[in-house]
Amino acid sequence: MNSKLRIRVWNEGVHEANNEPSHIGGMYPDGIHGAIAAGLRSHLPDAEVTTAVLATDHEHGLAEEVLADTDVLLWWGHIAHAEVSDAVVERVHRHVLGGMGLIVLHSGHFSKIFTKLLGTSCSLAWRNDGERELVWTVKPSHPIAEGVDSPIVIPEQEMYGELFDIPDPDDLIFISSFAGGEVFRSGVTFTRGKGRIFYFSPGDQEYPVYHHPQVQRVLANGAKWAAQPGLDRSIPGVSNPAREWFAE
Amino acid sequence: MNSKLRIRVWNEGVHEANNEPSHIGGMYPDGIHGAIAAGLRSHLPDAEVTTAVLATDHEHGLAEEVLADTDVLLWWGHIAHAEVSDAVVERVHRHVLGGMGLIVLHSGHFSKIFTKLLGTSCSLAWRNDGERELVWTVKPSHPIAEGVDSPIVIPEQEMYGELFDIPDPDDLIFISSFAGGEVFRSGVTFTRGKGRIFYFSPGDQEYPVYHHPQVQRVLANGAKWAAQPGLDRSIPGVSNPAREWFAE
Amino acid sequence: MNSKLRIRVWNEGVHEANNEPSHIGGMYPDGIHGAIAAGLRSHLPDAEVTTAVLATDHEHGLAEEVLADTDVLLWWGHIAHAEVSDAVVERVHRHVLGGMGLIVLHSGHFSKIFTKLLGTSCSLAWRNDGERELVWTVKPSHPIAEGVDSPIVIPEQEMYGELFDIPDPDDLIFISSFAGGEVFRSGVTFTRGKGRIFYFSPGDQEYPVYHHPQVQRVLANGAKWAAQPGLDRSIPGVSNPAREWFAE
Amino acid sequence: MNSKLRIRVWNEGVHEANNEPSHIGGMYPDGIHGAIAAGLRSHLPDAEVTTAVLATDHEHGLAEEVLADTDVLLWWGHIAHAEVSDAVVERVHRHVLGGMGLIVLHSGHFSKIFTKLLGTSCSLAWRNDGERELVWTVKPSHPIAEGVDSPIVIPEQEMYGELFDIPDPDDLIFISSFAGGEVFRSGVTFTRGKGRIFYFSPGDQEYPVYHHPQVQRVLANGAKWAAQPGLDRSIPGVSNPAREWFAE
Repeated sequence: MNSKLRIRVWNEGVHEANNEPSHIGGMYPDGIHGAIAAGLRSHLPDAEVTTAVLATDHEHGLAEEVLADTDVLLWWGHIAHAEVSDAVVERVHRHVLGGMGLIVLHSGHFSKIFTKLLGTSCSLAWRNDGERELVWTVKPSHPIAEGVDSPIVIPEQEMYGELFDIPDPDDLIFISSFAGGEVFRSGVTFTRGKGRIFYFSPGDQEYPVYHHPQVQRVLANGAKWAAQPGLDRSIPGVSNPAREWFAE
Repeated sequence: MNSKLRIRVWNEGVHEANNEPSHIGGMYPDGIHGAIAAGLRSHLPDAEVTTAVLATDHEHGLAEEVLADTDVLLWWGHIAHAEVSDAVVERVHRHVLGGMGLIVLHSGHFSKIFTKLLGTSCSLAWRNDGERELVWTVKPSHPIAEGVDSPIVIPEQEMYGELFDIPDPDDLIFISSFAGGEVFRSGVTFTRGKGRIFYFSPGDQEYPVYHHPQVQRVLANGAKWAAQPGLDRSIPGVSNPAREWFAE
Repeated sequence: MNSKLRIRVWNEGVHEANNEPSHIGGMYPDGIHGAIAAGLRSHLPDAEVTTAVLATDHEHGLAEEVLADTDVLLWWGHIAHAEVSDAVVERVHRHVLGGMGLIVLHSGHFSKIFTKLLGTSCSLAWRNDGERELVWTVKPSHPIAEGVDSPIVIPEQEMYGELFDIPDPDDLIFISSFAGGEVFRSGVTFTRGKGRIFYFSPGDQEYPVYHHPQVQRVLANGAKWAAQPGLDRSIPGVSNPAREWFAE
Repeated sequence: MNSKLRIRVWNEGVHEANNEPSHIGGMYPDGIHGAIAAGLRSHLPDAEVTTAVLATDHEHGLAEEVLADTDVLLWWGHIAHAEVSDAVVERVHRHVLGGMGLIVLHSGHFSKIFTKLLGTSCSLAWRNDGERELVWTVKPSHPIAEGVDSPIVIPEQEMYGELFDIPDPDDLIFISSFAGGEVFRSGVTFTRGKGRIFYFSPGDQEYPVYHHPQVQRVLANGAKWAAQPGLDRSIPGVSNPAREWFAE
């Protein structure tokens, strides 16, 4: 077993390729994934942090051998969810059930992998009006909340509001409010199979959220929490044991 | 078994007795308990709704025979928590574990019965600044959310904010935001023993919150949900069964 | 709104059609669905209980207009999961997210609809050895446990054992043990969208489990709990509200 | 911050002092606490593991300065719960809410500290008949389940059975079955305040359970999971913040 945490940051990378919005290149010169990866590297200097985008060669950069060597996958997508191949989604799903950590970011709530894992519509209310978001910790004992300010103040953000159509999470860690009055369960965890999943909503292609030190800390905490580096990567399976199979 | 739902609204009644704030008499001429009871009666016309206050004869109006005939108890307290006798708290606790429903309101978060049932400090942040509260539904399938607007708009309210030091609730139904930006888990359920508990934070001695039709609806839904009228009122107990005691 | 609870019992009906096992016709002369429906009718005399099987005309008996008139759907399937059309599964999924209750029975753990709603493999351990199953109540305050013996003693059953690969349920109501020593979370609830889901494992084509009075009671309790007859049948959707849309 | 994990194993120590049962001295020559501590030391060689018993000088060995230097406290008690002073229980309660980990073992389910933290009766069914206990993992992704066999086979044990009157746990990790057919939620976690709590039922003064390598592994995993060594030890408190207190 490699003792380094192996983290892969995946971004569709379409906003960057299209230069849309036009300030994205100045804000995220290495792409959204680049900014996320830089934050992870600064908090987790011993981790191996790699990146990939939709256009990356060989299965969007999510081939079998890549996932087998990944402890935690971060997922950012927005306008190209439909372009992610179903085969790749099946593969990621299988690895999550087998124990790979998954962190789904912001507009990734509508990604194929997130809705497949959760079974609901994952719909929400939204408004892009540059509102202040406050991210409040409601479960301070959770490892993902360790050392995180409450609230995190994000000066300008897209509003994501309830009803967020997700199953009851295992843990509700963060709740956000927006200047317009809406609230959102912005940091939630789920377990599916042997895999740990963290959804964190702050982050958008319009605002420099991934440069925020507190947001970077949350993502680093999330990666540490979601990783199970020593785990055998296998989906829980059907068995047909004989009576007393467990007896010595 | 009496087929009518038997609901008892308990209020310390000290703000009313002291005429503090001075507008409380005009706002709640029958006391906070009277307003709550009126709302319950209008939504649940078949229920028997009674009231009591701290000064009520015989054990604050919470004697053994009263609790034995109560399906759901609502609890409002604020400045007189310490005056509730420990014996009464023990008795209410025993009835809740035995299956009596309990609805704890607003500043009742610091009541002896609530902190005893939850085991935490139940502390929170607060600010009395007449801020608008928005109560958002996050679990629309829960019986307590049935027919409730999302958000409920309460024009002026005391702010209650996180961190609300409670155990993870069984169900999180409502989250509030306040004009100042704070958020609060304002509608949560717990199970303790065989009893169902609902905490709902809107409501204060300064503001006419209990006259709000949507708040009245929530409390009526809560009473229906918490009641188990046919249940044998007994605390889960220790047993020392023989092997195969369940065999025919 | 029709005031009667409208319950539909769906069974693939293939074991019965194939007379496999050969004693199924004697044990369940009206099919597994017939026995389930009879139990529901006896406990819920005011409900409208209908049945359908895979071979029923028009979309396996699960056409749009049928589901629109169904408050709770019970689902029994085993060897023909793959024959249920994907279009029907999508439709049932949509109705569950919109608020239709769903009760999944026994080998239905591998049905397309259950795995799609839960997002996991739903695999388990099994052994068909006619073992005694004991079904223990662990959440007595839940409506589905009302009036149910603990344990329910089922003299002969197929063993279903952990690891049952499901997400953490909203509520864990029943845990079973088997003569061979395995345990199983045999009664669990989930919420997906606005819909309430109950999975109950006792029941098999080999054993007369659906004639057991206590099992019938559990299913009747489950149907009452899962039904939301007054609810607007719509999936939670995306919205893009203006600021202050909720203000009067 | 001391970088070593500081673990304190507390045992009432009365069975050992009374030589009751008479084989306890041979089975646990260093006391139950000694066997637990030895297991922890072997799995966590870098930890500082200390022990104390009821008769230990100065506040049962649980004085303020001791708890302030303890990351995780393990608690074994049975026949002397009432002899633990209320002041010590208040102090432990305060430290748990402030972030000290707590692992409650076996008959500690009736300890003052456990019932105070949980708010329920914590009653259960029991039978001392030397039955085989099987401990099944139902949440394999939880850190406490890491590397643990499923089932753990304990040849002879006291039976603990449902109904275990506890609040719904945050996580249900282990379910046990017994030869007689009963089941028990034998490994459960709770959060209270900032503190993490793990209850694990295997273990008794009659049987050598704490020498079982798998049980030792569970306790070591539990200690690692419950510890928050860098956390400021303070109970969540009431605050009365001004508007916009969080703004830069």
